[in-house]
Amino acid sequence: MSLVYLVMGLALVQYLYFGIRVGGARTRYGIKAPATTGNESFERYFRVQQNTLELIVALVPALPLFAYYVSVRWAAGLGVVYLIGRFVYAVGYVNDPAKRGLGYGLSFVPVALLLIGGIVGAVRAVLTG
Amino acid sequence: MSLVYLVMGLALVQYLYFGIRVGGARTRYGIKAPATTGNESFERYFRVQQNTLELIVALVPALPLFAYYVSVRWAAGLGVVYLIGRFVYAVGYVNDPAKRGLGYGLSFVPVALLLIGGIVGAVRAVLTG
Amino acid sequence: MSLVYLVMGLALVQYLYFGIRVGGARTRYGIKAPATTGNESFERYFRVQQNTLELIVALVPALPLFAYYVSVRWAAGLGVVYLIGRFVYAVGYVNDPAKRGLGYGLSFVPVALLLIGGIVGAVRAVLTG
Repeated sequence: MSLVYLVMGLALVQYLYFGIRVGGARTRYGIKAPATTGNESFERYFRVQQNTLELIVALVPALPLFAYYVSVRWAAGLGVVYLIGRFVYAVGYVNDPAKRGLGYGLSFVPVALLLIGGIVGAVRAVLTG
Repeated sequence: MSLVYLVMGLALVQYLYFGIRVGGARTRYGIKAPATTGNESFERYFRVQQNTLELIVALVPALPLFAYYVSVRWAAGLGVVYLIGRFVYAVGYVNDPAKRGLGYGLSFVPVALLLIGGIVGAVRAVLTG
Repeated sequence: MSLVYLVMGLALVQYLYFGIRVGGARTRYGIKAPATTGNESFERYFRVQQNTLELIVALVPALPLFAYYVSVRWAAGLGVVYLIGRFVYAVGYVNDPAKRGLGYGLSFVPVALLLIGGIVGAVRAVLTG
């Protein structure tokens, strides 16, 4: 299971790094707190962090559920795909928000698969008592 | 415990579904990323997802804590109330944001009860060593 | 481990309390849902909650990981520093957003340490099989 916790930890580091970049963009584009709008470039960095927050909230519980009911190795593998997908997403979004689709799919699909696998495993366990 | 993990998984699916509806609303109302404002109808879908994010962050850890310290069945039951409450919330909010109160209460109260139960259980366990 | 779950529960209560204050600020400053902007005082309360959401998503999994691999007592201690830091952050931000730095550091650093400790522990466990 430690392999899965490692991937989870790396996903959280990546996410916090996206947050640090928002802080940098605040200074660079002169967006003073509490504002989060007013400059389109700043908003790209902000939305990368926010969208990763929206997704990691599902990734973090889905990883150990899938690992517990299905497979530790597959959970870790799907987690690595997520990590790469989020990297592609962040680079793509900052360059051109219209081209965020590929990275989004590459990170959303692993989370969906982890979640579905975890739910199927939990249903089976409930049914078999 | 699998019953609680099942309810947790379903709550995450519901939450991701609210996110997919935001994507649909983006296209329908012509809100291009990174913007999240500019059309009141779009903002309703967006706030349903965001508010569910705000709440599910507490639900996900509170469910297993309550189940571990208090009762698996009651944890699952409160989780089901949350699921129904969030459904009522989402339907109500999109129709009229002023009428989001009932669904909000029906989903906030179960999370609060799960969290309080979990904390009371943890305090007892700490005190009794 | 119950000590760590207790601190986790208190951090979630503090976070939900910040959310309740946003509801109060909505009424006080006349910001009707779905809007989240339009009054700078309201936005301060909103950003306190949002920023705590951004951080607690990492705190919640980092606490038990650090406790499992490193130390329950140190995990709980860092969690208490986070709790105090977030309190300082919330008070500072509402008074003057430019002075949110101290409370931010006092709550971000414990989360970073918990996460790094958890990752190092997971790496060691993976390597030693």
